[in-house]
Amino acid sequence: MSDTRTTRLIQSLPAAVPFVGPETMERARGAPFAARLGANESVFGPSPKALDAMKAACDEIWKYPDSTSFDLRHALAAQNGIAPENIVVGEGIDGLLGYLVRLMIAPGDAVVTSDGAYPTFNYHVTGHGGTLHKVPYRDDFEDPAALMARAAEVGAKLVYLANPDNPMGTWHDGDAITAALDALPEDALLVLDEAYVEFAPAAAPVAIDDALVIRMRTFSKAHGLAGARVGYAMGPAPLIAEFEKIRNHFGMNRAAQVGALAALEDTRWLAHVQAKVAAAREEITRIAARNGLSAIPSATNFVSVDCGRDGDFARAVLEALGRQGVFVRMPFAVPQNRCIRISCGTPADLALLADALPRALAEAGR
Amino acid sequence: MSDTRTTRLIQSLPAAVPFVGPETMERARGAPFAARLGANESVFGPSPKALDAMKAACDEIWKYPDSTSFDLRHALAAQNGIAPENIVVGEGIDGLLGYLVRLMIAPGDAVVTSDGAYPTFNYHVTGHGGTLHKVPYRDDFEDPAALMARAAEVGAKLVYLANPDNPMGTWHDGDAITAALDALPEDALLVLDEAYVEFAPAAAPVAIDDALVIRMRTFSKAHGLAGARVGYAMGPAPLIAEFEKIRNHFGMNRAAQVGALAALEDTRWLAHVQAKVAAAREEITRIAARNGLSAIPSATNFVSVDCGRDGDFARAVLEALGRQGVFVRMPFAVPQNRCIRISCGTPADLALLADALPRALAEAGR
Repeated sequence: MSDTRTTRLIQSLPAAVPFVGPETMERARGAPFAARLGANESVFGPSPKALDAMKAACDEIWKYPDSTSFDLRHALAAQNGIAPENIVVGEGIDGLLGYLVRLMIAPGDAVVTSDGAYPTFNYHVTGHGGTLHKVPYRDDFEDPAALMARAAEVGAKLVYLANPDNPMGTWHDGDAITAALDALPEDALLVLDEAYVEFAPAAAPVAIDDALVIRMRTFSKAHGLAGARVGYAMGPAPLIAEFEKIRNHFGMNRAAQVGALAALEDTRWLAHVQAKVAAAREEITRIAARNGLSAIPSATNFVSVDCGRDGDFARAVLEALGRQGVFVRMPFAVPQNRCIRISCGTPADLALLADALPRALAEAGR
Repeated sequence: MSDTRTTRLIQSLPAAVPFVGPETMERARGAPFAARLGANESVFGPSPKALDAMKAACDEIWKYPDSTSFDLRHALAAQNGIAPENIVVGEGIDGLLGYLVRLMIAPGDAVVTSDGAYPTFNYHVTGHGGTLHKVPYRDDFEDPAALMARAAEVGAKLVYLANPDNPMGTWHDGDAITAALDALPEDALLVLDEAYVEFAPAAAPVAIDDALVIRMRTFSKAHGLAGARVGYAMGPAPLIAEFEKIRNHFGMNRAAQVGALAALEDTRWLAHVQAKVAAAREEITRIAARNGLSAIPSATNFVSVDCGRDGDFARAVLEALGRQGVFVRMPFAVPQNRCIRISCGTPADLALLADALPRALAEAGR
């Protein structure tokens, strides 16, 4: 039963939810997961300085947040060598993608993405009446040239590209993306999702000063603050200014603003997390190999492991892992859905994975 | 300069921001305010149990929030004697108003509100292309009968009414609002903003089980968690279900969810705050009277004080208070803008007000 007073667009939308969260799954299975390796969170946590700052900020939580996220925005500008006018802070990349789609997409407008890329972006596009055009991955990589060509073909207003990619973990050099931009129509915009960029080789980030690109960053991954909901977008000042017309100005959590600022300043902790993630990627790769499976090389805090058969088999492995208390996810599109996607865990998490995977493969019928 | 790639609707929107926040004002004046009495925050703070719960929850802030706010939603349902399906939790009332307007309002749709009522609601209506129709206050009260009559006249899809009212602090019995509903067109929806309802007489809340009404509540006022960003809406299940199609599912701060739940359970602290607020209202009324001014009786955590002349004079008083470090706001519409709106403060805050007000009145030329 739906409410008939909503707009025609809303009535046309599916009731589907982009992701079922792990807490919902835990309630369904009647027990918590022993290893939470499905949401690409940072099990290594945020900087202790960020934690201290957040806890201290709780004592002022009776105050509304600074609606301009002034301190955080200025610190981000300084760190990235751009002006504060090139940055908008929002309620995670999810929130910012929602605002961006609302800014750019009227009903019927064309949007290009990869088949199997971020569902929450698609959710926002559909939610604003946009028409999605999808390009396949090429050898488990997003395909910038094909995305741009499709954008020109369908007159896209928005093109989505994640670099490094989620769910595969693969990446392109920034130069390759910049080169592909030549084929992007002038009235289009590339939304470059760099949620995992802190885990990528130095060559992965693209140059910022291009009116054709808006880059999305987050404190949810390398900075370990997924529960705080802090993301930011970097792009041309006239486009960034447009967010002021529609965003929830007092939407940021006050303690989260403070915590993100402290996390940003703690570059030593970031390096610590990067090293832990690199070691965990290697361990996941080793665990896969011990089970006769290959891992896709990753520039993120997760590893997609090729289960060697089809999507049904990978799903059976995923579900068997879940029954053993190991929460992982998997890609959505053929043939990437032959993989399961495993987030970097603590040594204890990965010991549980190592223990559970052979049984899961057996249960799945290998 | 604006970005020409945005939609026609976005290009038509003003760059104006609903509220300039106190931090922005403090940066402009080069000093913090000594008394923060302008944003109707709770200077008495949240429950110490909520603070403890939030600080403890920071240790799990690396996890995404529960996308369904399950525990909080169920506790709210139990407290209000309704089903969890009648409740959606969101990023403050501001965030929920944005979602609601997006659900209900297509470009050109009519919306009715009071002239001088909540600007952020108007911001969302304009942002989605709705057409605002405004009804004047009646003797500093919102006028339910006039709102409903206007809604019928213009074929409104949405009617906004705050009870108790902001910025005047006045209120109606729930029964009066229920009676007025008889005149609301069947295909319309009343959005009843009850942000301040915990400060109001027991007769103020309206009965919930009416398909014509959605009620907005918040943890920002009586629960002292403005910086946490937690609001909720209560309404008919089919309408509440529609939020799932568009909301930012992982948009809630994880520690805020936990803090709100603890705040909800601490009814003793709520009673403590209610008593503090009642005492502060009386003290503001006394301070006004000592300066020859009258206070509008209030059912909220603020008092609108009639400065006795026009909007220019009230603005001069407000600005003179600001120069003395006392931050207050004022209503927007004639003749309510003859008042300044003073949030309930600590005894120390109100001592500063008592000290500053005579000077402010003198500076304003009385």
